[in-house]
Amino acid sequence: MDTVSFRPERDQYRYTFGGAEPVMRVRPGTVLDLWSEDAFNHALTSVTDVASQKLDFRYLNPQTGPFYVEGAEPGDTLALHIVDLTPARSWGASAAIPFFGGLTGTDRTALLQEALPEATWIYDVDTLAGTVGFQSRFGDFEVALPLAPMLGTVGVAPAGGEVRSSLVPERFGGNMDTPEMRVGTTTYLGVNVEGALFSIGDGHYRQGEGESCGTAVEGAMNSRILVELIKGGAPLWPRIESDEHWMVVGSSRPMEDSWRIAQVEMIGWLGELFGLHTMDAYQLLSQISESPIANVVDPNYSVLVKVRKSLLPKADAFGGIHRALRESARSAH
Amino acid sequence: MDTVSFRPERDQYRYTFGGAEPVMRVRPGTVLDLWSEDAFNHALTSVTDVASQKLDFRYLNPQTGPFYVEGAEPGDTLALHIVDLTPARSWGASAAIPFFGGLTGTDRTALLQEALPEATWIYDVDTLAGTVGFQSRFGDFEVALPLAPMLGTVGVAPAGGEVRSSLVPERFGGNMDTPEMRVGTTTYLGVNVEGALFSIGDGHYRQGEGESCGTAVEGAMNSRILVELIKGGAPLWPRIESDEHWMVVGSSRPMEDSWRIAQVEMIGWLGELFGLHTMDAYQLLSQISESPIANVVDPNYSVLVKVRKSLLPKADAFGGIHRALRESARSAH
Amino acid sequence: MDTVSFRPERDQYRYTFGGAEPVMRVRPGTVLDLWSEDAFNHALTSVTDVASQKLDFRYLNPQTGPFYVEGAEPGDTLALHIVDLTPARSWGASAAIPFFGGLTGTDRTALLQEALPEATWIYDVDTLAGTVGFQSRFGDFEVALPLAPMLGTVGVAPAGGEVRSSLVPERFGGNMDTPEMRVGTTTYLGVNVEGALFSIGDGHYRQGEGESCGTAVEGAMNSRILVELIKGGAPLWPRIESDEHWMVVGSSRPMEDSWRIAQVEMIGWLGELFGLHTMDAYQLLSQISESPIANVVDPNYSVLVKVRKSLLPKADAFGGIHRALRESARSAH
Amino acid sequence: MDTVSFRPERDQYRYTFGGAEPVMRVRPGTVLDLWSEDAFNHALTSVTDVASQKLDFRYLNPQTGPFYVEGAEPGDTLALHIVDLTPARSWGASAAIPFFGGLTGTDRTALLQEALPEATWIYDVDTLAGTVGFQSRFGDFEVALPLAPMLGTVGVAPAGGEVRSSLVPERFGGNMDTPEMRVGTTTYLGVNVEGALFSIGDGHYRQGEGESCGTAVEGAMNSRILVELIKGGAPLWPRIESDEHWMVVGSSRPMEDSWRIAQVEMIGWLGELFGLHTMDAYQLLSQISESPIANVVDPNYSVLVKVRKSLLPKADAFGGIHRALRESARSAH
Repeated sequence: MDTVSFRPERDQYRYTFGGAEPVMRVRPGTVLDLWSEDAFNHALTSVTDVASQKLDFRYLNPQTGPFYVEGAEPGDTLALHIVDLTPARSWGASAAIPFFGGLTGTDRTALLQEALPEATWIYDVDTLAGTVGFQSRFGDFEVALPLAPMLGTVGVAPAGGEVRSSLVPERFGGNMDTPEMRVGTTTYLGVNVEGALFSIGDGHYRQGEGESCGTAVEGAMNSRILVELIKGGAPLWPRIESDEHWMVVGSSRPMEDSWRIAQVEMIGWLGELFGLHTMDAYQLLSQISESPIANVVDPNYSVLVKVRKSLLPKADAFGGIHRALRESARSAH
Repeated sequence: MDTVSFRPERDQYRYTFGGAEPVMRVRPGTVLDLWSEDAFNHALTSVTDVASQKLDFRYLNPQTGPFYVEGAEPGDTLALHIVDLTPARSWGASAAIPFFGGLTGTDRTALLQEALPEATWIYDVDTLAGTVGFQSRFGDFEVALPLAPMLGTVGVAPAGGEVRSSLVPERFGGNMDTPEMRVGTTTYLGVNVEGALFSIGDGHYRQGEGESCGTAVEGAMNSRILVELIKGGAPLWPRIESDEHWMVVGSSRPMEDSWRIAQVEMIGWLGELFGLHTMDAYQLLSQISESPIANVVDPNYSVLVKVRKSLLPKADAFGGIHRALRESARSAH
Repeated sequence: MDTVSFRPERDQYRYTFGGAEPVMRVRPGTVLDLWSEDAFNHALTSVTDVASQKLDFRYLNPQTGPFYVEGAEPGDTLALHIVDLTPARSWGASAAIPFFGGLTGTDRTALLQEALPEATWIYDVDTLAGTVGFQSRFGDFEVALPLAPMLGTVGVAPAGGEVRSSLVPERFGGNMDTPEMRVGTTTYLGVNVEGALFSIGDGHYRQGEGESCGTAVEGAMNSRILVELIKGGAPLWPRIESDEHWMVVGSSRPMEDSWRIAQVEMIGWLGELFGLHTMDAYQLLSQISESPIANVVDPNYSVLVKVRKSLLPKADAFGGIHRALRESARSAH
Repeated sequence: MDTVSFRPERDQYRYTFGGAEPVMRVRPGTVLDLWSEDAFNHALTSVTDVASQKLDFRYLNPQTGPFYVEGAEPGDTLALHIVDLTPARSWGASAAIPFFGGLTGTDRTALLQEALPEATWIYDVDTLAGTVGFQSRFGDFEVALPLAPMLGTVGVAPAGGEVRSSLVPERFGGNMDTPEMRVGTTTYLGVNVEGALFSIGDGHYRQGEGESCGTAVEGAMNSRILVELIKGGAPLWPRIESDEHWMVVGSSRPMEDSWRIAQVEMIGWLGELFGLHTMDAYQLLSQISESPIANVVDPNYSVLVKVRKSLLPKADAFGGIHRALRESARSAH
């Protein structure tokens, strides 16, 4: 296995899916060791840094990439297996940003009320204990929460020549902000352009489902990613596989449409895996679906539909590539 | 502890929250042994029974109750602890009903397309194995799924003199259709009228999150419920407590509003429990929220916001009544 | 033609559709002269009266009625023709109410921001000039706007034994808050219970489309209503006919569903009137629909779909009853 | 006044906002005579052409442009005055496209139902009578409807380096599909990139509000557009001015958010024009807003908020440029 390391210089950060030249060409089978800057572009480093003064809203969610995957053509399936995620700093940051987040008016849910108070929270990482420390800003409450690293953003170049902000989750993946994007998972994304042009970023040391205030415990991240390519078979929407679950991520508005997208894609997937008629898959999924919300704060809201593998007969998705990647990951770790 | 059994005659079934005379007066502290008919009103008993021919849409989700709780006044909090749920039949039923469900046009999402094919699925209950058996209707796939009994419907009479169909989830609880409404949980509902007038029904032997096709594995249920009353303290929206979680259920449309409701109520609850400022509770919840969807098929969509107790310091909600009810439940079991 | 006058005493005001005994029985063909209190229940009478101090939120949108229409049975169509609407006071009131309205967080779109500033506006009615006077509260801008009386609320008792707040627009009509509910129109409502049990209220001296802040120029109203009954033919959703337009009102959430409801109902209506296939009616409506928003502030949002009669061949809806009522109205005026 | 004519060759059609080199540089004050292909790219020319066989979904809504406006910088306001719109063919086409439109499941409102029947309608243009002729496809109904030419699509390059499909309406204008985009109006768009890079297309010979089935009477169009530039003053969302109305177009999902966006922008505009406090503008708009729906079929839904000028004192928006453009248009006509 080739292993390639890449840490972008600041002027190499990218803020879109599509519209950027690849930083590197990689062969399927390559292990990538990547460093990514935090979603705030390192602008919030203490509790006295507030978003409206420090953030440059043109430069959020800096992406590491895009990478050109050799042989990837439209209609193929890119498989990205997360071998490892390790915080690259000893602290993470989160912030209440004016008119951004799930419980405030926004540029879309346009209202006349005043903004919420601004504040920044700094979480210390305790690697030994495996925790991040929450410290209240308006009181004296403290609690250590389990470290649970994940990537907010994993995506390829969109179809149709579109270029989208790295804040957007869509068919091409992107800023899905799901805690399920963790070590041990394989993400399947349909390839839209030659080379796929994928990038990653937006490391979270921990995030709740919904990402209520709009920001997780944001932090620079070291990611080890195993890249594979499946010829053909492109899913319509991002799929994720872990040892325990098959998952689909739908991203749209209103949120019921995100859920519908993920359900319909999963019904198709169950049909493929088990030879089920659509109506049978619909019925079965009605009784076994798990459906955690991912984000209710981005330009599209993301919802997952998950199926627990242990409930169903053994089946291999995408030719059993997840299991193979798990094996490879063990040797790559 | 008083124990009272009640099995309604068919003419005692109720199809609304509010608008019905109580079937019985109960004292706080009473254990109720209740039998409830299935959501289809026993109209679907074989795979050849299809919804459009057999269902009487005026008579769905028959309720057992309402019960008048002595001493309950508007502003009080009704606590209902589920001691036990046992399938009352050896089979459950599920159905695809024309223009009802999450992945079809409905009376609300009014479209011009033809209805999906109708079908009924019968699930055999294997008590020994603890399973319900799925059998495909359009193929030959079979799988045994774990039995996971829950109540789709738990509610009190609404405020403002309203009377609502037993298909509706709202502030008063009702048809929330969440798999979290299971044995070992305590549900807290704000009391709107003298006596609270609560009822239960819509037993599910198993349900996925979202209840995609609109119906779970529907079945008659024997429920043992421990009734308690807390003077004052009425929550705005239904809260549920288990040994592991604090939970809130929001129900509205579009689905992001259901989530917002549950988030804001939970932020208030965290504030009460830990003396947190709203902005600190908002931040903390952003990192610890679990947020499974309950239903995307009822007149309001229901979403849960859950907080895992083990992440936070010990705290007693509603004076620690859940723990006390758990104790009582053990002796009542 | 019988003419009957009715002005309710305060203790006769009703705050729900359904759930109330009729105040009177009327025969089809009766002209009703009705007085209705304003939506605030006369609690805001000067700019110093603010909503949070003066309003009793249990007692808003007081209804005049319900009236029992002799011979009306479920499945029939109630036709209510508005012969005249005259302001019953020399001033109207409007208010910004905390957490109510279209451009603020609400109990449904639950957010954490502070409420907007409270304020009350009083509009003087100039009968001679036919205007209501807007006076700014935070500056010195004044403008006289044309008087344009309408009824916010026209409804019958709901189906299924439900009782709904008079703030709710739904299939049964109710608080639709459309400026189209004006003199010269005939409203068609499906009858759900014996006697139909209709009521009216929520007079507006003027209202914009959307009713942005949640309140129009609210005022007590004298309404002359001609009551007719059509056996059978109940529309699924409220229809309105004027000399110029056929209209349907859809009410749900999110707002696209309100529009879909009104579109599908109108496609059915065009099919009835002109013998059109559904796909042809869909296509034709795509090119001729007018679609003003009614309200984006009530528990359901209301949207109209209108078809201009002059675009299409002559056709008689409901047996041409609108034209007949127009004739009768002239003599009743 | 310079007058410049431009008719793109097929290989010059553009299918995005942003991401394309300008076809031409124009000075402010220029009159452009433009020809644009129909939204179907001339693929549907008879009723036997059906969408699924003839349309290439990568190449819809071909744009004429983009034009580089000399001197235009980010933060400026582009003013486009429509001097004339004349059908460039003697027929227009409309179609029911599988899984596209407002009354069917779509790629977003993902459902399991079968697609609606496909069909294409051809409308003959009668220039003398000023009509387009509807002919039913599933019956023998015919009706001549008034010709009412408009542009579905008017937009500039997006901000943030994004490139969006020409099917998308957004802040940058784009595929708003409003019948208000007609002769005599001035559209104001905020400039995001040097040169603004605007384009137009998607001519409609007639369209109803909502564009229910997803397509209007689509036709190639000759457009005479007067281009002006205002330094600074960029509105957040597209504004339109006619002799009778000030208008704002909001585009998002769900549809209530489109309305909120347009309301908030209009409240700001009224504040600018009349020195009104936000709360006074909110109140005033509540009583005078007109709010027709534009489209409920595109990736974002578009809603207008309109204010009738005659209701308010005289005021000049953007320095009275609309009136000046009307004058120029008369001489350019």
